[in-house]
Amino acid sequence: MLTLYSYFRSSAAFRVRIALQLKALPHEVIPVHLLRNGGEQHSQEFQAVNPAAMVPALRTDAATLRQSLAILEFLDETYPAPPLLPADALGRARVRALALTIACDIHPLNNLRVLRYLQTQLQIDEERRNAWHRHWIVVGFAALERLLQSDAMTGRYCHGDAPTLADCCLVPQVFNARRLQVPLADYPTIARIHELCMQSEAFRRAAPDAQADAQ
Amino acid sequence: MLTLYSYFRSSAAFRVRIALQLKALPHEVIPVHLLRNGGEQHSQEFQAVNPAAMVPALRTDAATLRQSLAILEFLDETYPAPPLLPADALGRARVRALALTIACDIHPLNNLRVLRYLQTQLQIDEERRNAWHRHWIVVGFAALERLLQSDAMTGRYCHGDAPTLADCCLVPQVFNARRLQVPLADYPTIARIHELCMQSEAFRRAAPDAQADAQ
Repeated sequence: MLTLYSYFRSSAAFRVRIALQLKALPHEVIPVHLLRNGGEQHSQEFQAVNPAAMVPALRTDAATLRQSLAILEFLDETYPAPPLLPADALGRARVRALALTIACDIHPLNNLRVLRYLQTQLQIDEERRNAWHRHWIVVGFAALERLLQSDAMTGRYCHGDAPTLADCCLVPQVFNARRLQVPLADYPTIARIHELCMQSEAFRRAAPDAQADAQ
Repeated sequence: MLTLYSYFRSSAAFRVRIALQLKALPHEVIPVHLLRNGGEQHSQEFQAVNPAAMVPALRTDAATLRQSLAILEFLDETYPAPPLLPADALGRARVRALALTIACDIHPLNNLRVLRYLQTQLQIDEERRNAWHRHWIVVGFAALERLLQSDAMTGRYCHGDAPTLADCCLVPQVFNARRLQVPLADYPTIARIHELCMQSEAFRRAAPDAQADAQ
């Protein structure tokens, strides 16, 4: 049995929800509200699940897994159909690099805890926090768009004609970008892939507004 | 033939240098100076190598690879001895999660471009930039130390008794922590593993001060 600790708006949890849906894996979701009760991720109960106090975490019968990309790789190894990584090493390296361009170069800078530090420790007002948030999306999306446009391996999806780890990361990041009103006109490939993904039920079921804990 | 685009002080390039040394892979290093000439990573020449304008990049006979963790996975798949990932899926998930705790939760916040944004866009002075830098190391190391201490799979190294991807990420982050005068006393497991790693020639050869471009 798989249990996902998730927060509807967490981009990292969203990635794992997509993979669970793409692979049609039955699972239970336990919501962890990052804002309520001083942040439920800091509760003693959740710290026992993930000492790093972050969502997502995935409990399997054998262990509790942390870090969205590590969870995605585990799901792909353990439940190989449909595959979320290409069969060839170069293809896998490319898909992982695209995923990491989002997971390392964009998302960590715009995490809740980071925006909070800017606000409380550095007295950065909301306008400048939003400018910060948008800046890293714009820089990251510009790089990602160049990587997608310049490579013949880009297909209907980020890599070829089926969703991979890269698409599991791209879609949640586009949701974030929209929330921050970053126009997608400069990133036609990103916008096109996002639109295609959202035509599929798996991606729609994983989306924030489809979650039980969405408000 | 393998060609690594590297900057001696880049933590991400350091990770790949460690893997190249552990696997004893002959390679050429091309230094990309992140500070000189307005940042050589922004040059037209280097943008052709990596449109994301970041080191490291690894050129193989077949393609140019980006993102340190994607490169590490590629090296491990292509040159499997000695392995940098455990043989079991749960072990791999754990090692990847430890690596990502550094690569996603600490390092991206302390990147040169981020510290520059704090300085130039948000007028944050050096003292508060260093406090920011240290804050994310302290939060990340506290989580990492808990993850290492609470799991019987931690051995002489982060996972068992041989270096893995996690150690390739840990050592460069400890170098950074020392540079920022973060005391390691609260992280005895991290300090112990770092010390053990640095007894090996592979890690020493990969270190910043052993690079041709070190100043």
